[in-house]
Amino acid sequence: MDRLTIVKVGGKVVEEPELLDQLLDNFKTITGNKMLVHGGGKAATRLAERLGVETRMVDGRRITDLETLEIVTMVYGGLINKRVVAGLQARNLNALGLTGVDLDLVRARKRPVEDTDYGYVGDIEKVNSRELRFLLSENVIPVVAPLTHDGNGMILNTNADTIASRLAIEFSNFFKVLLFYCFEKRGVLADPLDENSVLGELSETECITYQESGVISSGMIPKLFNGFRALHNGVSEVLITNPENFFKGRGTRLVRT
Amino acid sequence: MDRLTIVKVGGKVVEEPELLDQLLDNFKTITGNKMLVHGGGKAATRLAERLGVETRMVDGRRITDLETLEIVTMVYGGLINKRVVAGLQARNLNALGLTGVDLDLVRARKRPVEDTDYGYVGDIEKVNSRELRFLLSENVIPVVAPLTHDGNGMILNTNADTIASRLAIEFSNFFKVLLFYCFEKRGVLADPLDENSVLGELSETECITYQESGVISSGMIPKLFNGFRALHNGVSEVLITNPENFFKGRGTRLVRT
Repeated sequence: MDRLTIVKVGGKVVEEPELLDQLLDNFKTITGNKMLVHGGGKAATRLAERLGVETRMVDGRRITDLETLEIVTMVYGGLINKRVVAGLQARNLNALGLTGVDLDLVRARKRPVEDTDYGYVGDIEKVNSRELRFLLSENVIPVVAPLTHDGNGMILNTNADTIASRLAIEFSNFFKVLLFYCFEKRGVLADPLDENSVLGELSETECITYQESGVISSGMIPKLFNGFRALHNGVSEVLITNPENFFKGRGTRLVRT
Repeated sequence: MDRLTIVKVGGKVVEEPELLDQLLDNFKTITGNKMLVHGGGKAATRLAERLGVETRMVDGRRITDLETLEIVTMVYGGLINKRVVAGLQARNLNALGLTGVDLDLVRARKRPVEDTDYGYVGDIEKVNSRELRFLLSENVIPVVAPLTHDGNGMILNTNADTIASRLAIEFSNFFKVLLFYCFEKRGVLADPLDENSVLGELSETECITYQESGVISSGMIPKLFNGFRALHNGVSEVLITNPENFFKGRGTRLVRT
């Protein structure tokens, strides 16, 4: 099977021109099929502020009312996505920016209201890889913004880590998939205060232990959960890494227990 | 040759939910390959206002400083584009929203400063239809937002009428292309005060006469210029029409002199 590398990058990296340039230079060196999934939360929060729209988060997830949905559609689908695409085009990489709405890539349903009403937030139901697989064979590089749709015309806000994981699982039916989560640290730290305590490997069992002892912070939990889910569902390799190291394959490698 | 219908719709139509629904219902009835090109100027102006960014227009063209470029990237590439795509997906039409940046679809160069500095406005140099042609053959419906790029990472703002015309010309190498410009009126009016004075046909010679006598308003001139340019460069049919009539082929038909 051909190899496909899916790189998920967080908001900060794609929002600052210098970090974005570095990221894209590094991304270019990856051989084989590749895809980018990006966030953009910080820019969305900043635009919300300028528009006088309150940002409310629960467990790191954005409560998405209709106004917030417009904001994330503009920021994720427009501003960030097209900047990344323009940057890749400038490097002679034929990028296509899209959301889960486009090509019916990611279908979701609005999250049911339980303890919290998350608003227009989508839980993924189905990934359709058909058209993207052809485009990959034509050396196109998909750049995916974290929006999905319900098939009835409603756009939904969906966590980018989750989208990356679900795309990785779907594409693992057709490719040997490597999934790289880029964030600020060089990997998962055994000691949160020591940047050099990067774990070379992490199993789900160890992860639960670290979580219980408070070593792994709450912000990392969904990312790791998504990573293990991918690893248990056909994805060959999952790495927690940063924009300086992902293309070298350095970081914390998730391993099957 | 297969037929390809390119429908250009103005800002107002795609910005109001009810008008957009009607447009998409009508668009769905068009048989054969089809593509949508949209504007979004009114929504961009509204967002600029909310953000306290001044909107400056010269001859109907938006002066695009860096802040305005961010706004149109968000509004055209994000908000409007994804709304249209979600609406088409809800109608079981497999739409792909994109800008001229994506797939290197429309390359432009920043307009040189002469009398007016338009800022980050792009004059089209090249259209690349390769990937879209494949996607059309897979029944994908491209939805194009009026942004282009210079190949060096700079996104540029480009008039949607011009993009529609240039796409129509490029695709006429591979398809029998019909180009429909939808705006508020049922067509070009012989008497601006009489909505029923729609011209059935209009040649470029007649157009110049009408223009000199002031019958055709200044706002229509670039649209008609783009239409005639398409007609003289391989496009089979150009129609000036509105969202209620375009799919019936009713409106003012541009004819070769």
